[in-house]
Amino acid sequence: MDLNDRALRRIIIGLGGQGALREEGFNIAVASEIMAILCLSENEEDLKRRLSRIVVAYSYSGKPIFAGDLKISSAMAVVLKDALSPNLCQTLEHTPVFIHGGPFANIAHGCNSVLATRYGLKLGDYLITEAGFGADLGAEKFFNIKCRISGLVPNAVVVVCSVRALKMHSGDFKVVAGKPLSEDLLRENTDAVERGACNLEKQIENMKQFGIPVVVAINKFTSDTKNEIEAIRKKAIAAGAEDAVLSEVWEKGGEGGRDLAKAVDKAANKPSNFKFLYDINASIKQKIETIATKIYGAKDVQYDPEAEKKIALYTKLGYDKLPLCMAKTHLSLSHDPNLKGAPKGFTLPVRDVRASVGAGFLYPLCGTMRTMPGLPSEPAGERIDLDQNGKIVGLF
Amino acid sequence: MDLNDRALRRIIIGLGGQGALREEGFNIAVASEIMAILCLSENEEDLKRRLSRIVVAYSYSGKPIFAGDLKISSAMAVVLKDALSPNLCQTLEHTPVFIHGGPFANIAHGCNSVLATRYGLKLGDYLITEAGFGADLGAEKFFNIKCRISGLVPNAVVVVCSVRALKMHSGDFKVVAGKPLSEDLLRENTDAVERGACNLEKQIENMKQFGIPVVVAINKFTSDTKNEIEAIRKKAIAAGAEDAVLSEVWEKGGEGGRDLAKAVDKAANKPSNFKFLYDINASIKQKIETIATKIYGAKDVQYDPEAEKKIALYTKLGYDKLPLCMAKTHLSLSHDPNLKGAPKGFTLPVRDVRASVGAGFLYPLCGTMRTMPGLPSEPAGERIDLDQNGKIVGLF
Amino acid sequence: MDLNDRALRRIIIGLGGQGALREEGFNIAVASEIMAILCLSENEEDLKRRLSRIVVAYSYSGKPIFAGDLKISSAMAVVLKDALSPNLCQTLEHTPVFIHGGPFANIAHGCNSVLATRYGLKLGDYLITEAGFGADLGAEKFFNIKCRISGLVPNAVVVVCSVRALKMHSGDFKVVAGKPLSEDLLRENTDAVERGACNLEKQIENMKQFGIPVVVAINKFTSDTKNEIEAIRKKAIAAGAEDAVLSEVWEKGGEGGRDLAKAVDKAANKPSNFKFLYDINASIKQKIETIATKIYGAKDVQYDPEAEKKIALYTKLGYDKLPLCMAKTHLSLSHDPNLKGAPKGFTLPVRDVRASVGAGFLYPLCGTMRTMPGLPSEPAGERIDLDQNGKIVGLF
Amino acid sequence: MDLNDRALRRIIIGLGGQGALREEGFNIAVASEIMAILCLSENEEDLKRRLSRIVVAYSYSGKPIFAGDLKISSAMAVVLKDALSPNLCQTLEHTPVFIHGGPFANIAHGCNSVLATRYGLKLGDYLITEAGFGADLGAEKFFNIKCRISGLVPNAVVVVCSVRALKMHSGDFKVVAGKPLSEDLLRENTDAVERGACNLEKQIENMKQFGIPVVVAINKFTSDTKNEIEAIRKKAIAAGAEDAVLSEVWEKGGEGGRDLAKAVDKAANKPSNFKFLYDINASIKQKIETIATKIYGAKDVQYDPEAEKKIALYTKLGYDKLPLCMAKTHLSLSHDPNLKGAPKGFTLPVRDVRASVGAGFLYPLCGTMRTMPGLPSEPAGERIDLDQNGKIVGLF
Repeated sequence: MDLNDRALRRIIIGLGGQGALREEGFNIAVASEIMAILCLSENEEDLKRRLSRIVVAYSYSGKPIFAGDLKISSAMAVVLKDALSPNLCQTLEHTPVFIHGGPFANIAHGCNSVLATRYGLKLGDYLITEAGFGADLGAEKFFNIKCRISGLVPNAVVVVCSVRALKMHSGDFKVVAGKPLSEDLLRENTDAVERGACNLEKQIENMKQFGIPVVVAINKFTSDTKNEIEAIRKKAIAAGAEDAVLSEVWEKGGEGGRDLAKAVDKAANKPSNFKFLYDINASIKQKIETIATKIYGAKDVQYDPEAEKKIALYTKLGYDKLPLCMAKTHLSLSHDPNLKGAPKGFTLPVRDVRASVGAGFLYPLCGTMRTMPGLPSEPAGERIDLDQNGKIVGLF
Repeated sequence: MDLNDRALRRIIIGLGGQGALREEGFNIAVASEIMAILCLSENEEDLKRRLSRIVVAYSYSGKPIFAGDLKISSAMAVVLKDALSPNLCQTLEHTPVFIHGGPFANIAHGCNSVLATRYGLKLGDYLITEAGFGADLGAEKFFNIKCRISGLVPNAVVVVCSVRALKMHSGDFKVVAGKPLSEDLLRENTDAVERGACNLEKQIENMKQFGIPVVVAINKFTSDTKNEIEAIRKKAIAAGAEDAVLSEVWEKGGEGGRDLAKAVDKAANKPSNFKFLYDINASIKQKIETIATKIYGAKDVQYDPEAEKKIALYTKLGYDKLPLCMAKTHLSLSHDPNLKGAPKGFTLPVRDVRASVGAGFLYPLCGTMRTMPGLPSEPAGERIDLDQNGKIVGLF
Repeated sequence: MDLNDRALRRIIIGLGGQGALREEGFNIAVASEIMAILCLSENEEDLKRRLSRIVVAYSYSGKPIFAGDLKISSAMAVVLKDALSPNLCQTLEHTPVFIHGGPFANIAHGCNSVLATRYGLKLGDYLITEAGFGADLGAEKFFNIKCRISGLVPNAVVVVCSVRALKMHSGDFKVVAGKPLSEDLLRENTDAVERGACNLEKQIENMKQFGIPVVVAINKFTSDTKNEIEAIRKKAIAAGAEDAVLSEVWEKGGEGGRDLAKAVDKAANKPSNFKFLYDINASIKQKIETIATKIYGAKDVQYDPEAEKKIALYTKLGYDKLPLCMAKTHLSLSHDPNLKGAPKGFTLPVRDVRASVGAGFLYPLCGTMRTMPGLPSEPAGERIDLDQNGKIVGLF
Repeated sequence: MDLNDRALRRIIIGLGGQGALREEGFNIAVASEIMAILCLSENEEDLKRRLSRIVVAYSYSGKPIFAGDLKISSAMAVVLKDALSPNLCQTLEHTPVFIHGGPFANIAHGCNSVLATRYGLKLGDYLITEAGFGADLGAEKFFNIKCRISGLVPNAVVVVCSVRALKMHSGDFKVVAGKPLSEDLLRENTDAVERGACNLEKQIENMKQFGIPVVVAINKFTSDTKNEIEAIRKKAIAAGAEDAVLSEVWEKGGEGGRDLAKAVDKAANKPSNFKFLYDINASIKQKIETIATKIYGAKDVQYDPEAEKKIALYTKLGYDKLPLCMAKTHLSLSHDPNLKGAPKGFTLPVRDVRASVGAGFLYPLCGTMRTMPGLPSEPAGERIDLDQNGKIVGLF
């Protein structure tokens, strides 16, 4: 079910002796472990196996109860049978594209399905896929989870940035979600771009830790100036990018991406040496600390008692051999949305660690993650209607 | 959503300040007012109008809050747009049949959609449609609700019975839902059939109150004897049925229904004088009491304080002009499943009265109605699976 | 705790993993099994034993969990230590009286404590004690529970009635709790008194089944007329009462009870043959049916599935050897407050049966029993205050 | 009510339409605003006034609803009438002592009642009173809340410390509540004492900000060594204490406190210049920041959105003119129990701000405060019993 009513976020079910009284909650479909499983499964057999390993509860003595124990995973696989096949769409310019699967990029790994990626690789010369949120989240998870589980190896990585975002990372501007941007952000300010570029530099440095060539795509906005773009280019190349190219796809369609494509082609054909950030056999804490210090720039990590308890439990159950899927804000390289640029020396707090055993990863929580959005103050549904002729109106 | 988890029957939502904390419950789709609306709507415009009139709450000052006030009914109509079109299926003998809509026969009116009935009437010479549960419920609601709202007029009514069911109505046998039937029920027992036939007699008498010819169909079971069948025939005709005919459709397919079809054809071509049981402008209590005394055989009606309160409220709001949809057990002509045969002189208790204003009826509750079933001790889903070749197995 | 907030009647506790999440409720102190135990205990040892046998839950396998198993009953006895001693008060005329204990007369036995009764018997020549609600409830429980458990034997019973109450039992008058009485009730109406006296006759007949002399006390109101009082007298004596005497205690104090005292003295000194209504070793259903048919005038008893389940459980656990404490309305001899006078031929419904194993009785529920009252629309507490001199005002 | 069942910490009340359904919780009596009020009231009139100003809810339009609006505060005052009078007890050496009132030292001000303090001042030459938790909490609240509201002025302050506690503040030792102390803490370690003394130095510095003489009492343990005690003495005097004296009261009774008493007498007779830490008319944030930076050593303060919202609300309602009662851990000068010694440069997080308007203060929350303790794994009640002679046993 894909519901969107925030009153269902936290509920009590089973009143009146109708089943066990317990606190529960609805999540939207993309936040469920099932979506993550769909995107990591190689075939129906693998899908069934992963579904059967979802941990739904623990017995009083601490043993995990699996979906398979409840005998529901096969029926779930039947429901997902058709959804497992990637669906081929076309872009506005009639080029083929797979749009398949959407695991949340915070509590899950945020990538397209493994199957869609495999199909794409078979069907074309180049396969470009997206990894959600910033490279500290999306790319790190793409490499350490999706590539590790599937055996897929990337040839190059494209880090996207914009003049506006780097200005914001200078720390000079206050940006509030849902509110219009300050006019100041739209004025030329090469100094702010240069100072905020420390964020881009850290992202490039991070990508290079995985051993593959990096190309920076500067997503062009109409208010960007030549000086600002040039400032980014210089910083990016100084930081080790193969190239930094303007992307004008928004304005000009495929034509606007020609330069970028050439740069990526060149980078992808360079020899590379892809490697994972951490050894899968390292302890849970070692893995967390590796990501925290090498990718985020943290000094160290602090664990809440709940996190300590879970780490001990998962280690005892053998789940410490799973890769990690960090649940962290995308608004900062750190856990704190207010720390812009490339913060250093902070302590990363880990509140809790949860397990998606079926999907095949643990997800440490570095903050509060919302898994069911609220509705906007004027929900889109209010505009949707049937007109006189029975035609649906108000969808866009 | 069509869920089937009894732990969701009674829930509390909105914990932690996520919306208003309140007691709620999930019903299955067939128990929702939306299903009743779908089955009573004439077209998209009518569907929208009825959806917009669903009462979702009352203000502190007692005014109804409609789905239309929440601006959600148009979007609901869009979701139901395709569902509103009847779907044409075929029987195993390749004759056409509409299967369209399924409102619960207890808290709703239990009939096929008005649109499917209209389409059927246009497309064939005869249209046979079913009304759920016993004639005291199904037929009464078919006439007083579906025929009244749509203006459709029936030409004949078929009352179905079986030897076994009438034996049971003798009161000599204990039948428990979910347990195998007593062997005694399968032995010839003409005396029990004759005594239990008082139930059939009352159902025939009830149908004749609506002014149309009645045919009795005796649904044949392998254990039935000639004497038992003959006993029913005699009683039925004595009670005023046009005819009482054996139906062997289960055993012989369409061929087994030939005699019944002839009898129905004959009855349907007799002049008739269809009339409603009650005047729509009568008070709520008058309508309840008319159904209770004329159809069920009750002496009088007793109202719980909750029912009294609602009757006063609905009368004040003008909802007293709606037809009634009695929510009563189908296991007895009375409200008490233990009273078999044709009980008389009892007091019908009305616990509460609820309103489906959008659908267009009030439903008095004469007992506890369950609107979300539980799962069997071994849920069917446990057998469903994908086999090695990805084929779905275990559905049947 | 003795709280009085109806919002606490039905609650959910243990949210957020703070203990087991469960549905609970607060009852006022007089509705607790502890109050019933206090009133039936012979001494501290007996109090401890009874407290330890309170059933607080059942294990998954159906075994009772006792307060003693939780090791809390001894501490409870310490808290009740002083409360166990009867407190001697005095009336407005300075005669001694024990006021000690108050178990609800619906879900409990509604009598003063056994200890206060024993003390009174030691300290005076006559001991008069009250049993709550009508004689069909109060006296029946006094005899079958309190006398049986304690071994105490009464010498005479006083049935109290009033002109007004018997008029009401004629069925001619509508009386609504909380609303002023109809003026009609205050006018002389000997005919209504005589017809309503069937209730008194049944109560006298009931008392005589216990084998002890009955005296009727007519509680005088200022609006009563001589004819009405005389009508009661005649009916009472014809029904087998030793005497029927006017009680003017409300108006004249002790002096107004002199005639009644003489009549009770005479009756108490007559030979008597006290016997219980039912054998303690009879089955639960036999006991319920004995009370229902012999005391209430019912034709038979109908058990809800919940009641059947409990009867089977308690019989298996050996609790069928406990006396019964019927939970029934006091507004009718039947379970239905609307049936006035001495109804006959009705079926008594038993919804559920509960167990106060510590107190030592089972209580079948013949309707909904409220165990926490609501507050009046203007709570008494609103008038209570400290005045300028720190004196408490507004208590009366 | 003073209950102690953690399952009552978070509950939902009003199910089934019994009052408004809402999330609630029980607190123990010492955690209630009523206890704080009792301890700050000057007389019955003041008690009534403060009770009537308790804010129990806010209307939909944001107006506070007071206990007085519900007309319950006068009745509450009646219940508290006797509790308001301080109760005079005696020590084991038969000296008089008032033990009166106990507001929690985290969410309330943690001091004895104003009335008991006034009575003591009238009845003796010196009045010594305690303020709960460390001086950063207890003394700060004593001065800024109790002294400010009552007008009482202290002559000297005694800061209590122990060798063991200062060793712990060196940060070399891990101390876990409920677990036995490390043996290492009991060995002489003058170096650790000297390093941990930075905590004592900060506390002395803090007290001197209030303008009154400070005496340090070293609470002697049997494992303390001369060198360790001398180290403390030196550090204390260097930090500005009038004197630092060994207290042997635990071992020797009153005799063991003679030296301390002399030192306090001397200090109390020195001229002093008591002043509050902050101006009552400063904004809420100014007050929080003054305490955070001047007393705790914080660099600055960070407010959660919930705190910001409340600060705006209270300022609008005029509650910004109330003193503050910081709710902070007592295990560190900071908000983080792990930061030992005298931490500097940290950011104090303020999660929320609450108001005890009746008591007369706001309490900012710098962490999670528990207001109902759990029971120990073997509750004390299990040992309490009545013995054969009816004597209570197991209390100690």
